Amino acid sequence: MAHIAHNPDAWPDMRTALDLGAVLPRTAELRDGHLWIGGVDTVALAAQFGTALYVMDEAHIRGQLREYLTQLREHYPTADVAYAGKAFCCQAMCRLVAEEGGWLDVSSGGELACAQAAGFPVERVVVHGNCKTPLELWAAIEAGAGLIVADCFEELERIDRVAGELGVIQPILLRLTPGIIADTHEYMQTGAEDSKFGFGIGAGAALAAVEKALQAPGIALKGYHIHIGSQIFAFESYQRAIEVLLDFAAGVRDATGFTPEVLDLGGGVGVAYQADDQPGSIAAFASTVTAALCQQLAAHDLPEPRLLVEPGRSIVANAGVTLYTVGVLKDLPGIRTWVAVDGGMSDNIRTALYDAHYECLLANKADQPRSTVVTVAGKHCESGDVVAIDASLQPAEPFDILAVCTTGAYNYSMASNYNRQVRPGVVWVQDGQAREVLRRETYEDLLRCEV
Amino acid sequence: MAHIAHNPDAWPDMRTALDLGAVLPRTAELRDGHLWIGGVDTVALAAQFGTALYVMDEAHIRGQLREYLTQLREHYPTADVAYAGKAFCCQAMCRLVAEEGGWLDVSSGGELACAQAAGFPVERVVVHGNCKTPLELWAAIEAGAGLIVADCFEELERIDRVAGELGVIQPILLRLTPGIIADTHEYMQTGAEDSKFGFGIGAGAALAAVEKALQAPGIALKGYHIHIGSQIFAFESYQRAIEVLLDFAAGVRDATGFTPEVLDLGGGVGVAYQADDQPGSIAAFASTVTAALCQQLAAHDLPEPRLLVEPGRSIVANAGVTLYTVGVLKDLPGIRTWVAVDGGMSDNIRTALYDAHYECLLANKADQPRSTVVTVAGKHCESGDVVAIDASLQPAEPFDILAVCTTGAYNYSMASNYNRQVRPGVVWVQDGQAREVLRRETYEDLLRCEV
Repeated sequence: MAHIAHNPDAWPDMRTALDLGAVLPRTAELRDGHLWIGGVDTVALAAQFGTALYVMDEAHIRGQLREYLTQLREHYPTADVAYAGKAFCCQAMCRLVAEEGGWLDVSSGGELACAQAAGFPVERVVVHGNCKTPLELWAAIEAGAGLIVADCFEELERIDRVAGELGVIQPILLRLTPGIIADTHEYMQTGAEDSKFGFGIGAGAALAAVEKALQAPGIALKGYHIHIGSQIFAFESYQRAIEVLLDFAAGVRDATGFTPEVLDLGGGVGVAYQADDQPGSIAAFASTVTAALCQQLAAHDLPEPRLLVEPGRSIVANAGVTLYTVGVLKDLPGIRTWVAVDGGMSDNIRTALYDAHYECLLANKADQPRSTVVTVAGKHCESGDVVAIDASLQPAEPFDILAVCTTGAYNYSMASNYNRQVRPGVVWVQDGQAREVLRRETYEDLLRCEV
Repeated sequence: MAHIAHNPDAWPDMRTALDLGAVLPRTAELRDGHLWIGGVDTVALAAQFGTALYVMDEAHIRGQLREYLTQLREHYPTADVAYAGKAFCCQAMCRLVAEEGGWLDVSSGGELACAQAAGFPVERVVVHGNCKTPLELWAAIEAGAGLIVADCFEELERIDRVAGELGVIQPILLRLTPGIIADTHEYMQTGAEDSKFGFGIGAGAALAAVEKALQAPGIALKGYHIHIGSQIFAFESYQRAIEVLLDFAAGVRDATGFTPEVLDLGGGVGVAYQADDQPGSIAAFASTVTAALCQQLAAHDLPEPRLLVEPGRSIVANAGVTLYTVGVLKDLPGIRTWVAVDGGMSDNIRTALYDAHYECLLANKADQPRSTVVTVAGKHCESGDVVAIDASLQPAEPFDILAVCTTGAYNYSMASNYNRQVRPGVVWVQDGQAREVLRRETYEDLLRCEV
């Protein structure tokens, strides 16, 4: 929860747009005093498509995906990268991932349907979820999903039953919880023993799950999946998780003879939400993870499995900015200055939900120092509707275009119609071209479920 | 933010459905071991419409609205009730409010468009928002909205300009912040001096706003609006706010001669989210507020204005339950039992966002005591996706129908497609009849903004 109280003594961070490198998309640049991305003037984009608007740098997305593949394969040639669709999922994104040779991690029937509509090769789809519905399981198995990550005993029985009815053998991984508490937000810790996800290794559930899967005629057990959390800056957590995982794999080999063909290690690196954040690099992630893996494989004399990782946030978060139009300013002397924009918690719930902090700048004054400290509020009828608290910003006036950085992940995907606000469109930019991949909703869209 | 850690020593609350009166809709009853609402078996509704599903008791909604009108008018004959659409807004709801003679409070162009589509009389619409866009203002003035609540100086100028262009005189209220800290969640405190909303009384902005409004040819100043927050249990805050407001009104009268024709006091009573919550009654609210108002009017020798109040949550929250199907159970000995359902933070963000606590029961075992303590998790790929922590529940099995109470307000309205989950439909029940007022989304709906 974002505490809306602010620090009255906060000093402005005078850096201009150019100094915010870590949070901006790769192709961000300053031209004629404006913020340009992908060779396109964001101020012109705001005029053309209206605000609020999500703008994403296609070169950044492709670059991040390629960097994962290159760095991982340098150390571990059979590595693959499954993009975690929950971060940002639409048909254009699915097609991009397919073009780059990636796998796709889907976490619901809706994401699978989106992937199928985009023509994504289903044999490269990994299906997640702690509570897949019977219909979702049926749809995934019928479609021929590459891997289903089974989360509990109940689900193993259901997969086996559906596969039997469809006359197929479904490849699966088992989701294991290694009992690792990762250094991240409580909501993003997913590897702890007390988790709604997976089979606990410590308590013996994981071994029982292997035995059950090996006996199920409709199931082909391919290996294991762990996911210790998201937005992790220190990779030691991965090393520990890999130790626990390979120790388990060796025990299973000794008990049953089964060795994994696939190991899926879950998420990737954290991202910078603020200019001073220093997440680890993809290169460091790749070398740490693969070194730990190879070392443990050797130590336990286990054959080399194929490696999957599932980055989502780090592929798209810094690729995106949200553009808003400044609506009104409210200067409360001795208290603070409120800058209100034409969006808010409907298009970015993360400030209120996770106490997330964002860097802001005025896209039309990007060459000026951010010499004021303001609170950027949304337009929703709720005090908690703030975009950024104590944000450094160029001196703002109504109708300035305000850009909020690092909004490519979990912004569009978590957007709502709260206050019957229409959800913004998404425009991808590359090489001087803007392409609307998702249009803005209309008031008619808001009424389409009325009976 | 909901802390997902739980209390391992929590005891079950053995009350059955019938003992949860305060959080259940008015017509809830137990028949054949099932939870019935509006003379309809909720278990049958789950089978007919699928889950997740919002079920709302129409008699409860109408009853709450009538109780506000009756109780207020008993003490103050010119009182009107403006339903706050942000709590739950659809065409059926707008029509219900119109039929009951209510006003409607809209907080965006989207809510206004919904009201217009439903044929709601626009002269009974109050238009809110701290950052109305120029298009929203134009639409409201062109439509002939009964009252616009002006939030800042910039907006006064814009209303005057648009009214001038359209050749009309727009009736407005001024939103004032009385500097009252209400006893509620930080996000729901809206009356403090440090607020994104309104004109501060203490700092002199409010008086300047009156003077500006009185001079604007396109504006007819009708009075004042205050809103000190939502989910307020102790009505003393209202008394203090009314004192500040009337003191200000008397000062304005002395300085300018202006006296308000309308006073809008914002929200209504709090609601019970847990069985032991004891919000004040509508009767107590009505008598407290009207007594304070009459006393202050007399003390300052001010003429009696029309009174508006704007309840939202207390009209619809307890009218609603969400029905889920239990998917899987995960019993972690010595840790806790997880019960996962086929919905979660996409249809109810309030647990994660406000640390809200909900009462749960199994609709198909409603006559059994809630003899277990569980954590109800959603199906989203996120640890923070919990519906209820340490919830008392009848012993659950897969395919039971789990009902979560008090979900009529701010659940549908804040719902998202996170993880590409389709949003549930809304069914209204009354006198043994079920009426789908909003249908469930389909996967096709999820793709409709793809370009």
